Amino acid sequence: EERSGVKNIPAVSLRRAVLSQRKERDRIYMDCNATTPLEPAVIEAITEALQDAWGNPSSNYPPGTKAKNIINQARENIAKMIGGRADDIILMSGGTEANNFVFHTAIKYFWDTWGKSGLNGGKTGHLNAEGVLPHIISSNVEHDSIKLTADNLQKEKRAEVTFVPVSKVTGRVEVDDVLAAIRPTTCLISIMLANNETGVLMPISKICRRVRALTECRLEPRILLHTDAAQAIGKVQVNTQELGVDYLTIVGHKFYAPRIGALYVRGPGSTSPVFPMFFGGGQERNFRPGTENTPMIAGLGKAAELVNRNLDQYEAHLRATRDYLEERLEAVFGKEKVHFNSHFKGTQILPNTCNVSFLGPKLQGRMVLSRCRRLLASVGAACHSDRGDRPSHILLSCGIPPTVAANALRLSVGRGTSRQDVDRAVEDLREAVLQLEGGC
Amino acid sequence: EERSGVKNIPAVSLRRAVLSQRKERDRIYMDCNATTPLEPAVIEAITEALQDAWGNPSSNYPPGTKAKNIINQARENIAKMIGGRADDIILMSGGTEANNFVFHTAIKYFWDTWGKSGLNGGKTGHLNAEGVLPHIISSNVEHDSIKLTADNLQKEKRAEVTFVPVSKVTGRVEVDDVLAAIRPTTCLISIMLANNETGVLMPISKICRRVRALTECRLEPRILLHTDAAQAIGKVQVNTQELGVDYLTIVGHKFYAPRIGALYVRGPGSTSPVFPMFFGGGQERNFRPGTENTPMIAGLGKAAELVNRNLDQYEAHLRATRDYLEERLEAVFGKEKVHFNSHFKGTQILPNTCNVSFLGPKLQGRMVLSRCRRLLASVGAACHSDRGDRPSHILLSCGIPPTVAANALRLSVGRGTSRQDVDRAVEDLREAVLQLEGGC
Repeated sequence: EERSGVKNIPAVSLRRAVLSQRKERDRIYMDCNATTPLEPAVIEAITEALQDAWGNPSSNYPPGTKAKNIINQARENIAKMIGGRADDIILMSGGTEANNFVFHTAIKYFWDTWGKSGLNGGKTGHLNAEGVLPHIISSNVEHDSIKLTADNLQKEKRAEVTFVPVSKVTGRVEVDDVLAAIRPTTCLISIMLANNETGVLMPISKICRRVRALTECRLEPRILLHTDAAQAIGKVQVNTQELGVDYLTIVGHKFYAPRIGALYVRGPGSTSPVFPMFFGGGQERNFRPGTENTPMIAGLGKAAELVNRNLDQYEAHLRATRDYLEERLEAVFGKEKVHFNSHFKGTQILPNTCNVSFLGPKLQGRMVLSRCRRLLASVGAACHSDRGDRPSHILLSCGIPPTVAANALRLSVGRGTSRQDVDRAVEDLREAVLQLEGGC
Repeated sequence: EERSGVKNIPAVSLRRAVLSQRKERDRIYMDCNATTPLEPAVIEAITEALQDAWGNPSSNYPPGTKAKNIINQARENIAKMIGGRADDIILMSGGTEANNFVFHTAIKYFWDTWGKSGLNGGKTGHLNAEGVLPHIISSNVEHDSIKLTADNLQKEKRAEVTFVPVSKVTGRVEVDDVLAAIRPTTCLISIMLANNETGVLMPISKICRRVRALTECRLEPRILLHTDAAQAIGKVQVNTQELGVDYLTIVGHKFYAPRIGALYVRGPGSTSPVFPMFFGGGQERNFRPGTENTPMIAGLGKAAELVNRNLDQYEAHLRATRDYLEERLEAVFGKEKVHFNSHFKGTQILPNTCNVSFLGPKLQGRMVLSRCRRLLASVGAACHSDRGDRPSHILLSCGIPPTVAANALRLSVGRGTSRQDVDRAVEDLREAVLQLEGGC
């Protein structure tokens, strides 16, 4: 058998590995809204902590203290990234947990205050005599970790939920629609900061200002304000003070950080209520116990530090690249052939997201992508990847006609996407569309 | 300024770094029940996945599939480690989540079946007219992620809990005491497999067999059987089939794996009920949604693979090292001076745990440890490290007198602990005790 000389690996395996690596390097990844690779500096921070900071952060001796310090440093960087204080950050396993946590807290908070407010005659309990239920307002284009959490609360008759529909003209949740949905029992408004498919930025800061003005004199329960900022962080400036939210969800793997997350809470346990979902060893001030995942937290902190340092540059690069992509698509396919599903008059969208349909009967998004040699992208949220060819309910909600929505591709560029990548991706798409229209 | 020549670091910093590293290398870590370092092969698996398997496991293209395959491979290894099937493994953030998840499931299951069993006349709901509550049996020496979860359910009047006391003679929960606690409303028995402070192994397999025999003809709710195996895995054989449990908690960082965990469920959703705590993108078959932490899962799988391959060897080494430690302690201090708080007649304990008190008025555990130059150990659970000098309630529960318990040290050796480490640790302890008794 021929030997390659490298660590005794048979030459044929090595050749195969090199080929496969080349193929992988050839790929053009435009699915950064699904997940991002990790920044080298982030990998380094994680690896260092894996090696050197494995001590239990609750232990009082030096290896424990070292881990604790790394966590505290990360917490500072994460807080700075979203304009909060370190104490406002509760580290947890990810965005799904953070979103579920907020809904859990809101329901508990409702029952905690409702009984004391006098509004229900001093009664407490999950089902009081008048059949009162906490009320939650969300939108009809949320991620499943919001949508299904809300659905489940309704199904279990633990809450009533109004899913405010986005405007079919602007793709946005409109402030007046949110205000109109408020009831005396409303305890939570949870609306995403940026949509994952269209990139549409929601008017969170206006919503918060108007809600606060409207409910200034209201007795408890006050209305807790939450935004899931998963898609916005690392792409545009996200500042909890400007937004005016009480809670904000932070998801590492959308901004070149590892697969953990955090919840920003404005003054947890003091200004804003927190009702833990877990009980245990006291970590995260009992808000979220469980031995801390030091290496991943170190990585999240490092990624936040990078955002703190470089956001303007990231945003400019994303915007220039996405704009170039849209320009090339129009140039290559012609204006009549492409429809940008994320262009709404007067609506701001994420700088990296291009949701596009090629118009024509055989050009369903999934078909087009399957013919692309190098381009990796998706037709919508990754967690919907097994839902067949039904058009995205999010695009339909935004007023995109079904035949156009069925052809949608979500192209989300990243920090590493070059103009050359764009050229090659567009070439892939051109060939794919040609093939499909030629019937082969 | 003098330069070291290495990456432009001032020589003085480098010298300080080297010294600090040497000091760290000098340390003798005997706190493996608090947390363990990561095995080099585990770090490698994590690092590889960080680099190469960052794709979203829900994405259908190659990087997604690659991540999915890594997760599936890990799941196989984890399942094999505890004698389960891959489908029985639900990956989650850690032991705290897993333990909370089981209690959450049991309560939901109770109300799901209680209404249908005819026992309460067909009524359902959280508070029925007769004031029936689900009943849970646990022990009085559980980890806080069980104890405080149970406490909270009681506080919120969502469950009644019997904490069966361990025997002051055997240090164990006795099977008959568990059986005697069973009520018609009992829906969960949750008892740890091995205690974190004493190392005592609980008679889980006997409990499961006797409970099943006793409740064979019982209508639903049946009694769900859970054990938290955090401290046992990687130290002794853990087999869910032999144990007979329905649920078993797996905690990575206690067996040289990263800070995530998993829950074994015998036939989740079919044989054994599962009620998710989170709702979201469908990952883990909707039992535990949230984008998978691929690198950490890869590490957990690798650590499981190592246990599958080497457990006998690990166990033998731990036992020999711990036995040598106890032998040296007796030899150096004399039999009258040391009391082993984990020696109970006829009771098996973990092979790596030595809970020892030096007898004397000035020899509180914390004092002794603070005088040790190299030895790193603890006086009990790391998450209790801020609870001052109160003697461990676990030791008191096991019948250790308060003055002895106040002096307790938990020395938990690991795969890497050598006989030389033991000698140096005992020397440290000897000097510390001399100092304290000399009054300096």
